[in-house]
Amino acid sequence: MTPLFRSLSVIGPGLIGSSVLRRARETRAIAETLIAADSNPAVLERVRELGIADITTSDPAVAAQADCVMICVPVGAVEEVARQVLPFMKPGSILTDVASVRGQLGPTLAAILPENVAYVPGHPMAGTEHSGPDAGFSTLFEDRWALLVPPEGADTKAVNTIEQLWTLCGARTKILSDEKHDRICAMVSHLPHLLAFTICDTADNLSDEIRAAVLDYAASGFRDFTRIAASDPVMWRDIFLANKEALLGTLDKFVADTQAMADAIRTGDEAAITSKIERGRAIRLTLIENRQA
Amino acid sequence: MTPLFRSLSVIGPGLIGSSVLRRARETRAIAETLIAADSNPAVLERVRELGIADITTSDPAVAAQADCVMICVPVGAVEEVARQVLPFMKPGSILTDVASVRGQLGPTLAAILPENVAYVPGHPMAGTEHSGPDAGFSTLFEDRWALLVPPEGADTKAVNTIEQLWTLCGARTKILSDEKHDRICAMVSHLPHLLAFTICDTADNLSDEIRAAVLDYAASGFRDFTRIAASDPVMWRDIFLANKEALLGTLDKFVADTQAMADAIRTGDEAAITSKIERGRAIRLTLIENRQA
Ligand SMILES: NC(=O)c1ccc[n+]([C@@H]2O[C@H](COP(=O)([O-])OP(=O)(O)OC[C@H]3O[C@@H](n4cnc5c(N)ncnc54)[C@H](OP(=O)(O)O)[C@@H]3O)[C@@H](O)[C@H]2O)c1
Ligand SMILES: NC(=O)c1ccc[n+]([C@@H]2O[C@H](COP(=O)([O-])OP(=O)(O)OC[C@H]3O[C@@H](n4cnc5c(N)ncnc54)[C@H](OP(=O)(O)O)[C@@H]3O)[C@@H](O)[C@H]2O)c1
Repeated sequence: MTPLFRSLSVIGPGLIGSSVLRRARETRAIAETLIAADSNPAVLERVRELGIADITTSDPAVAAQADCVMICVPVGAVEEVARQVLPFMKPGSILTDVASVRGQLGPTLAAILPENVAYVPGHPMAGTEHSGPDAGFSTLFEDRWALLVPPEGADTKAVNTIEQLWTLCGARTKILSDEKHDRICAMVSHLPHLLAFTICDTADNLSDEIRAAVLDYAASGFRDFTRIAASDPVMWRDIFLANKEALLGTLDKFVADTQAMADAIRTGDEAAITSKIERGRAIRLTLIENRQA
Repeated sequence: MTPLFRSLSVIGPGLIGSSVLRRARETRAIAETLIAADSNPAVLERVRELGIADITTSDPAVAAQADCVMICVPVGAVEEVARQVLPFMKPGSILTDVASVRGQLGPTLAAILPENVAYVPGHPMAGTEHSGPDAGFSTLFEDRWALLVPPEGADTKAVNTIEQLWTLCGARTKILSDEKHDRICAMVSHLPHLLAFTICDTADNLSDEIRAAVLDYAASGFRDFTRIAASDPVMWRDIFLANKEALLGTLDKFVADTQAMADAIRTGDEAAITSKIERGRAIRLTLIENRQA
């Protein structure tokens, strides 16, 4: 089987980018030649040690020569990196990114595409709390979703190609609008992360005694909330800012629901407490049935 | 080695109670004779099938004949069950319970103890989201904490005995005041559970489309929050009501911290967002160092 691309560039070979490179390396089905680009020489050095790319470069013009250029840098840097590579991209090539938030990225980049270059971003719904080239692994995307968010009027053939790319990574694909993508991610990912960081912060602000106790007794519930709180601060700052509107809207709903539960507890309304718990529980049990738990 | 007790009664052989019975059965170090008592005949039938008690009974007077009577029913039922067994308890015997919240239980029961009966409750900081006699297992308490909360002036020998009981279950023990116990548990366990139930409720209240998406993409953060949301509604209703004051106080702090994060996002205060994330992350990394994660 000939690989999907002759060459693939990954700009920002961190957790996500290096996982794509590893997958491409292992399966040989994604690209003949793998290019890794980064502004940080230490990252490139590590990529060479890991042997997961054929070419490493810090030059956007070199990275831009591939059939497919995949931007895997933090959300806040995607536009800037895209502006660096786009002028050098070849006719017929595809630009993609893996940003966790869409915001205005789609229309902004669609407006500055060179003739005959397609832009088809896709967000893999997979990750861990670790980052950097050492954190990646080739099976990261297996059985996970990749949400494709092509701008309006995107070239169908390019969309199909990026769908194939993610299928070759082991993922299932779905096509969504930017707005829907961002609302969904606010609920399933961004709000949980915000709450995880905040509950750790709350614990940290309590007395020394309580903080010490939290560390001793975390297994009783606290722990479950905090795995994701080890995630990278810059990445999450970017995500929170980029998805401000949907995130704060979802947070408002959550805080209102929390206050309703608090009121039920304050007034001793047993039926209201139990029914809220039952509703929460039902969602959880459906997750288990769907084998998402 | 002679066992710690000649006989041990477990009233309410659910997750916690049946785990104690299983441990006692396996190690033979806790009691010679094991009694399981419950108001529900189906629970007793299941205990007999599982073969984890020598005697099963629905009669509090029979359960009361043991050297140690351990009440393992939901928090809201502990006082009532204690009032049923206490009149029948033998001089020199010990009453204990495993309730997740202390509230006024300590002083209330201490005030009605018969002559020569000690009351030494202990809360094992271990559990799962499952309940009932089938959910228990003998290693549930291993390397976990059991928080002893003896009322003021409790008999030292009885306190030592209950410490030994939990040590034989594999747990580490600590002695705390009721008030400190409840504040700690509000933070490490009750608030996380309240948030877990609520975030599921919030997801459930959103549009059908978002709810469906939550179920598809839960792996992106949502899932971590919801394991504990499968927990038993009645048990948690009782806990929330019994620990109302400490829980609502901790929740207020959490909501304020959430609003501070929301303000930082709304105003684009990058430094404030990052420093909150960093603080949360530090707690998480300490948990990993403490091997509590
Ligand atoms: N982690 C997840 O769970 C997850 C899931 C789905 C999608 N995503 C998205 O995937 C992207 C990358 O996330 P990740 O977790 O893989 O992050 P990561 O492990 O930190 O990797 C990011 C890489 O980009 C490099 N980089 C940062 N700024 C750059 C710039 N201006 N120019 C060139 N390279 C730059 C970083 O190098 P240095 O920082 O060393 O300079 C690093 O090699 C983000 O857009 C994120 O939203 C993440
Ligand atoms: N689960 C945890 O994570 C955890 C951790 C530490 C401590 N605790 C505490 O341990 C206690 C038991 O929790 P669990 O998780 O083991 O619950 P569980 O599995 O539901 O078991 C409770 C048992 O008590 C019985 N019961 C309920 N009401 C009763 C009554 N009025 N009289 C007699 N028996 C009654 C139940 O039978 P039926 O309901 O079938 O009638 C069941 O067999 C609670 O006080 C809880 O706060 C729980």
